[in-house]
Amino acid sequence: MYNLAKVSSPIKRLRMTNKMTTQPYKGSRDFYPEDMKIRNFIFDTWKKVCKSYGYEEYDGPFIESFELYAAKSGEELVNEQLYSFEDRGKRKVAIRPEMTPTLARMVASKINELPKPIRWFSIANFWRYEKPQRGRGREFFQLNLDMFGIEGVEADLEVISTSVDILKSFGAKETMFEVRFNNRRLADDIYRNLGLSTEQKKLVNKALDKKLKISQEEFNSWLKDDAKLSNLELKSLNDYLENPMPMVNQLVPKSKGAQEVVKLTELINNQGLSMFVKFDPTIIRGLDYYTGNVFEVYDLNPQNIRAIAGGGRYDDLVTVFGKDKLTGTGYAMGDITLKDFLKGWNLLPKFESECEYLITLWPSEDPKFLKKELEISKILRNNGLNVQTWLENNTKLEKQLKYADKKGCKYVIIIGENELKDNLVTIKNLKDSTQETKPLEKFISDIK
Amino acid sequence: MYNLAKVSSPIKRLRMTNKMTTQPYKGSRDFYPEDMKIRNFIFDTWKKVCKSYGYEEYDGPFIESFELYAAKSGEELVNEQLYSFEDRGKRKVAIRPEMTPTLARMVASKINELPKPIRWFSIANFWRYEKPQRGRGREFFQLNLDMFGIEGVEADLEVISTSVDILKSFGAKETMFEVRFNNRRLADDIYRNLGLSTEQKKLVNKALDKKLKISQEEFNSWLKDDAKLSNLELKSLNDYLENPMPMVNQLVPKSKGAQEVVKLTELINNQGLSMFVKFDPTIIRGLDYYTGNVFEVYDLNPQNIRAIAGGGRYDDLVTVFGKDKLTGTGYAMGDITLKDFLKGWNLLPKFESECEYLITLWPSEDPKFLKKELEISKILRNNGLNVQTWLENNTKLEKQLKYADKKGCKYVIIIGENELKDNLVTIKNLKDSTQETKPLEKFISDIK
Repeated sequence: MYNLAKVSSPIKRLRMTNKMTTQPYKGSRDFYPEDMKIRNFIFDTWKKVCKSYGYEEYDGPFIESFELYAAKSGEELVNEQLYSFEDRGKRKVAIRPEMTPTLARMVASKINELPKPIRWFSIANFWRYEKPQRGRGREFFQLNLDMFGIEGVEADLEVISTSVDILKSFGAKETMFEVRFNNRRLADDIYRNLGLSTEQKKLVNKALDKKLKISQEEFNSWLKDDAKLSNLELKSLNDYLENPMPMVNQLVPKSKGAQEVVKLTELINNQGLSMFVKFDPTIIRGLDYYTGNVFEVYDLNPQNIRAIAGGGRYDDLVTVFGKDKLTGTGYAMGDITLKDFLKGWNLLPKFESECEYLITLWPSEDPKFLKKELEISKILRNNGLNVQTWLENNTKLEKQLKYADKKGCKYVIIIGENELKDNLVTIKNLKDSTQETKPLEKFISDIK
Repeated sequence: MYNLAKVSSPIKRLRMTNKMTTQPYKGSRDFYPEDMKIRNFIFDTWKKVCKSYGYEEYDGPFIESFELYAAKSGEELVNEQLYSFEDRGKRKVAIRPEMTPTLARMVASKINELPKPIRWFSIANFWRYEKPQRGRGREFFQLNLDMFGIEGVEADLEVISTSVDILKSFGAKETMFEVRFNNRRLADDIYRNLGLSTEQKKLVNKALDKKLKISQEEFNSWLKDDAKLSNLELKSLNDYLENPMPMVNQLVPKSKGAQEVVKLTELINNQGLSMFVKFDPTIIRGLDYYTGNVFEVYDLNPQNIRAIAGGGRYDDLVTVFGKDKLTGTGYAMGDITLKDFLKGWNLLPKFESECEYLITLWPSEDPKFLKKELEISKILRNNGLNVQTWLENNTKLEKQLKYADKKGCKYVIIIGENELKDNLVTIKNLKDSTQETKPLEKFISDIK
């Protein structure tokens, strides 16, 4: 038994203050039933496509040790966006800002038992301390899909295909989105060709990562002023970005990155995916761990400029746990930008009410009405139907019907004096306002 | 662009240290695909039953303001178990330890728009800083089901019925579990009858709350030493606990609580639920906000002594937000004790592999094999099947078959030289080890 003396006065005081806010914490969302329907619609579609490719669902804990993120997440994330704190046992912990570190830990833990390739997906909630804005909250859900153990670009093709299939499953057409891919190794070789230093390469990558959101002038001045590119280097780089294929083809004999891009392009063409997936030398991905092909999925609606999804090939996520290297490829898709995408292109369906029957309760003190009502509700439920019952025996029928209407119920059952006496039910169809009375037995056999 | 100079040296150092642990944070769980199947099985059953009663799914954020819990959660929770911390903007926040405060906030926020009764459920993850032990982690999932706006015990009956139906949906019989209910108002009246002071009542409630876990001697000495009950008071209390109905019936004329217990018992009998649901005067529920009927669901397996579910009637959760009182009744069911219940009674099914087809890739440099493989996989997926493809063109068929076997795939498709030439497929049934070769067209029309 805990000590009553522990009841601290600040809590007592808080209980006294009046009128707490009903707003959720800044940057987070309440999911009312109508929001939840959209969320479930998105999750169900994600799951369906992932499973159709043989991916299996996993999940990890919402809190991990701080060290895991310090070791595996990007520095911006860890230094500026992580929700981290000390637990009551003085362990430094953090709320997950992304899935990859957890995924790497879980795969490393069972690396020898798991048959390869490993195909896994998860749908989870993440938190980052960011300034909330369109397409970005502090809290968001992500689909994470990854395949481990296959080096070839065929695996990259598959994960890209799943992202295309997901958007197509929502009804999206090629005019609505585009997958843009590049290759980290190729980018390195291009920069080496231009004679850039390691430091300059990093800065060029960072500038490319922001290119969509800044003007060409800003881009140029970043490269000149920050990355110290000469005018000639800048021109060569811009020429490459403008028309990359000649240089890519020229690099093929000696550049693994160029070979991967050419092969992936070929596979994309063979698979009839070229209207959805395009090579784009400006795609870099912020995170350090990518090593091969990288890609992002963009909404072609100019109102929604943040990527819907992004990912790529990483060659080493598990050695930090003392395991042998294991290559992987995968991506994350966020629910907020995806919802903006679906809304923008009018791809969100109208969700029907899930209420199939409201069984009304005849306004009477006689307990037989309730008994009959509950008896019928049980039968309908046992037949897989969603049934609400009215539970107050002093409510006018009119009010009960109004409730059924507000909740979008398809049918209302009425059992009045006559129905009860003769074992009948009256069924009101709220869609077409028809009504019929029939023997309970007949009604039940019709249901079945 | 973020400043590279910000890369802090502690992180760099962490990246250097070797061999991080692959263990999850203490008291939390990794859900590998085989664990996830159990979790989804539990969640799906929860959802199915909740929806069959017309409850709608909602969710709230994982983080709320500390004030919300300080105002609405039990003091033990807030003082000893809450994961709370300051965010980067110096707001005091907490990770949700229970759903009710969020639920109260969300209902309060839309109290005038929401048609009554409100029937809602959620399935969410919660965190409490507790000593991990059997049936209890620091992290757990809970179903929360609540109905607002109906005062009568008919509403209590309904929420109790949903808990019984959930366990029955898992295949549980009346020998496996028991719902035990009591009434807070009745308990108050009983204590008043015994002449106990407010402080004594509280201590008696606390002793009752632990009664299952302590001996009768301990119980008696707590009541004598801590609650200062006289020998006569103690005897009267124990007599009541032993054989409560005479005193309950005697109190009916003047005690609302006794009336509610008698009426609920009647409804339970009428509904044929008396083998599952029993009056038990020792059920109290720790939380302050309960006001009427309260109940807990117990596993009858003596190995699993923590309650599977618990809840009850609360009359005022929203006035703290400046709203009018709104009565509610509901409960939470935890996934950990439920899983222990299902395991203990052998109610967890064997989950079949979700892999329906593995399409093998003939070991050959010829790209036609991959093309054909991906073409067939697409057709099967479009027909709703779960299909994995082998993506390396240098793997012996034997190894691919071994993988299919490990993953529990039902069928393997083989397209070798002959099949490719004549547009055939060989289908191997891994369950009965039969095999047949047929025209691709025929195979596809059979699938459809």
